[in-house]
Amino acid sequence: MLADLRQLAQFGALDPGVERPAFSDQDVRAREWLARRMEEAGLDVQIDGVGNVYGRARRAERAILIGSHSDTVPRGGWLDGAYGVIAGLEIARACAEARTRERIGVDVISFSDEEGTFLATLGSSAFCGQLGASDCEGACNGDGLSLNEALGRAGYAGRPLARLDPARHIAFLEAHIEQGPRLEAAATAIGVVTGIAGVRRRDVAFEGQADHAGTTPMDLRRDAGAALIRYAVAATELLRSESVPTTVWNIGRLSLHPGASNVVPGRAEMLIEFRDVDDAVMSSLEAALDRLAERLSDETRVEVHSRTTDSRSGSVTDERLASLIESVAENLDVSSMRMLSGAGHDARVLGAHVPVGMLFVPSVGGRSHDVAEHTSDEDLVTGALVLAGAASRLLDGELFT
Amino acid sequence: MLADLRQLAQFGALDPGVERPAFSDQDVRAREWLARRMEEAGLDVQIDGVGNVYGRARRAERAILIGSHSDTVPRGGWLDGAYGVIAGLEIARACAEARTRERIGVDVISFSDEEGTFLATLGSSAFCGQLGASDCEGACNGDGLSLNEALGRAGYAGRPLARLDPARHIAFLEAHIEQGPRLEAAATAIGVVTGIAGVRRRDVAFEGQADHAGTTPMDLRRDAGAALIRYAVAATELLRSESVPTTVWNIGRLSLHPGASNVVPGRAEMLIEFRDVDDAVMSSLEAALDRLAERLSDETRVEVHSRTTDSRSGSVTDERLASLIESVAENLDVSSMRMLSGAGHDARVLGAHVPVGMLFVPSVGGRSHDVAEHTSDEDLVTGALVLAGAASRLLDGELFT
Repeated sequence: MLADLRQLAQFGALDPGVERPAFSDQDVRAREWLARRMEEAGLDVQIDGVGNVYGRARRAERAILIGSHSDTVPRGGWLDGAYGVIAGLEIARACAEARTRERIGVDVISFSDEEGTFLATLGSSAFCGQLGASDCEGACNGDGLSLNEALGRAGYAGRPLARLDPARHIAFLEAHIEQGPRLEAAATAIGVVTGIAGVRRRDVAFEGQADHAGTTPMDLRRDAGAALIRYAVAATELLRSESVPTTVWNIGRLSLHPGASNVVPGRAEMLIEFRDVDDAVMSSLEAALDRLAERLSDETRVEVHSRTTDSRSGSVTDERLASLIESVAENLDVSSMRMLSGAGHDARVLGAHVPVGMLFVPSVGGRSHDVAEHTSDEDLVTGALVLAGAASRLLDGELFT
Repeated sequence: MLADLRQLAQFGALDPGVERPAFSDQDVRAREWLARRMEEAGLDVQIDGVGNVYGRARRAERAILIGSHSDTVPRGGWLDGAYGVIAGLEIARACAEARTRERIGVDVISFSDEEGTFLATLGSSAFCGQLGASDCEGACNGDGLSLNEALGRAGYAGRPLARLDPARHIAFLEAHIEQGPRLEAAATAIGVVTGIAGVRRRDVAFEGQADHAGTTPMDLRRDAGAALIRYAVAATELLRSESVPTTVWNIGRLSLHPGASNVVPGRAEMLIEFRDVDDAVMSSLEAALDRLAERLSDETRVEVHSRTTDSRSGSVTDERLASLIESVAENLDVSSMRMLSGAGHDARVLGAHVPVGMLFVPSVGGRSHDVAEHTSDEDLVTGALVLAGAASRLLDGELFT
C-alpha cells in the first residue's frame, strides 16, 4: 500500500507536494495507472463518463464499496484522497489473494474532482445520480476551461456513468487524512467520523456613499466600511451564542471600495461561511444573520444585502459502522475517538444513499491542502488495518447479511 | 473671471468634469495658457523648475500672494484649485486696471501637483524651500513615470525655482471650494478657514496562521481577520472617545489573505487615517492606537504591527486675516461661518512661513474629486468679491504696513 501511495504521488509530483487538479494531464495519467492497478488486483475496471475509476469485484453479487478521490488542489499534498483510494485497492487486493467464497466482494472507486476544480464532489454526485446536465453546463476551472471541454479532452465524454447500485452496494467505507489538528493533539490514531458538516456560504454587500474622508463630517457619512465592521462583530457574536458546539465559521474575505485611505468607503463586501452537520442549525443561523442584516439596514444609513451562494447539507455516518470501526480499533489495541468532519468528503454525498463508515488518520501539524501535508507511515498503516478489519467483518456477514 | 474659469476647464475637459493630472500634456498646456493670461494682466511671469506658474506684480516692493493650484485628480472637477488661481488672476487684473500707487502689489501663483499625482503639494513645498532633492528621487505617478522624467518631458527640469520671499510677501490668500457639505447645509456663502487639518496615515498588519476553516476548531485558530475586526472596532471606539470634536477618521482599505471563503485568514491588513489641526491631538491618538495594537498582540495569538506611513502637520491660518475676511463679508452683507478644512491645501504648507488667509465657497452636494463637482456662478463671484475686498484692505495698508 505504501509503495502504491508513493507511486501515485509521482503523478504531478512537486518537491514536496503534489499538484493533480481534476482532468489535468497528471490526473488523467494517474487515473489510467489506477485502472491498471485495479485490474492487476482482479477487478473489472471502468473509467466512466466523468472520470470515476471504478473497479468491481468479479463474481460478487453484493459488495462493500471502498474509496475516495485521487485529484488534488493546486499545490496540494500526497495523501488527501489518494490515501482512501489506495487503502481500498490494498483491501481489494488482499481480499482477492486470501478469499475463496465471494458472495460479498470489495469494489474500489476513485471519484473525480472531489476538490472542485470544476465542480466539488463531481464524481460522487454523478455516481449517486445527483448530477444534472445543467449542473455541468456552467462549470469552469480557474482558467476558464469548461467542464464539458475538459471531459472531452480527457477522453471521458460520452462514456457511460458508473452508478451506485442499491441491490449491490451494502456500504461505503472511506479512509481519509483528518486535515485538522485534533487527532495529533489527542495522540489518537483513529478518528471515527460520526458526521460530515454541511456548509452555507454567504455574500454580504453594504451600499453606502463614497465621500472625502477629510471634509465629510463623521455624522453625515454613509460609511459602508463602518457598517461592515459592525456587522462582522455582531455576526461573530451571533454565531458564537446561537450555534452548537460543533459549528465552525469563518470570515475569509473583506473588501472596501474604492479602497483609498482618504475616501469613505461607499461599498463593502464580505464572505462569511459556517458549517454544521445539522441542517436545522445552519438554517436557524442563516435566518438570524438575515435578521441582523435587516436590523443594520434600519439602524444605519447603509443598505445591507445578503444572499447564500453555496448550500450543502451535512450528513451523518451509519452508527453501526461507526461502532464497528471502534470495535475493530479496540481489538487491535489502537486508540480511537469519535469526531465530526468539518471538511466535505465524497462520503457526505454517498451518505444520503447508502450506509457510510469513515475513519481519519492524524495529519502532522493539522496541515492539508498544502505541500506540507503529511501522515507517518505507521499511522497510514494503522488506519488501513482498522479499515481492513471493518471490511473483513462486513465480508463475514456482520451487519448487512 | 467666470470666462477664464470656463476657458481653463477646456484643458482636459471631460463631459462633465476635468482631468488634468500634474505634468500631463493638458496640465502643461493649461500652465502655458495661465502664464499668458498673467502676462496680459501685467505681471512678470515665470514657470519654474517644478512647474509653478508665478506672476509678479511689476514695480511693487511688497506683495500679497494669491493663488492655489491648477492640476486635478483623475476624473476630477473644474473648480478644485482652478477657482483660487483664477480668482487671484482676476484680482491682479482689477488691481492693474484700477490702481496707480503700487507700493504693495498682487502676485499670483498656480502651484504644481497639489493633488499628489507624483508628490502632494509639490509646488508649494518647493516654493517654501521645504523640498529636498531626495523627496523627488523616489516620486512616481501611477504609471511608474518618475517625477524627474515628467519634469524633463514638460520642459521644466533645470529651470530656477520661484521662492517665497519674506521681504516681499506679506500674506498668502487662497480661495477654494469647500469639498464638503457644511456650507450648503448651513446655507452660508463663505467659509472662513481657521485651520487646515494635518493627517496621519497608518498601515496595520495582522499576522496569524492560515488554516482550513472546516477542520480547525475555533479555539485553535490564529485568525488574523478576527483580530483585524476586533482592532477596527476598538480603534473606532478609541478615536471616538479620545479625539476632539474637530477630529475625523477613516478606515479606507481592508484585506484578508489568502481571501478564500474556506481558509482562516493567516494575514490581514488595514489602512486607517485620522486628521486634526492640532498635532498634539494626532500624536496622542497615534500613541493610543500603538497601545491598542500591543494589547491586542498580548491578548490574541495574532501579532499586530502598525506604522505611520504619512504624517503631515496641521496648520492654523492667521487670526487677523480670518477676522478681516469676516469683516469684509459682513460689510458686503454676505453670510459667513468659521470652519476647519479637513482636506489639505497649499495654504497648509504656506502657513508655516507667512500669514495665511483662506476662504471656502459652497460645494453642491459636498461633492469634489469627482466630475460632478460644482459651485454656482453666484457663489463663485461672491467668494471672489470677498477675497478681493480683503486684498483691497491689505493693499490699503491694513494689518501689514
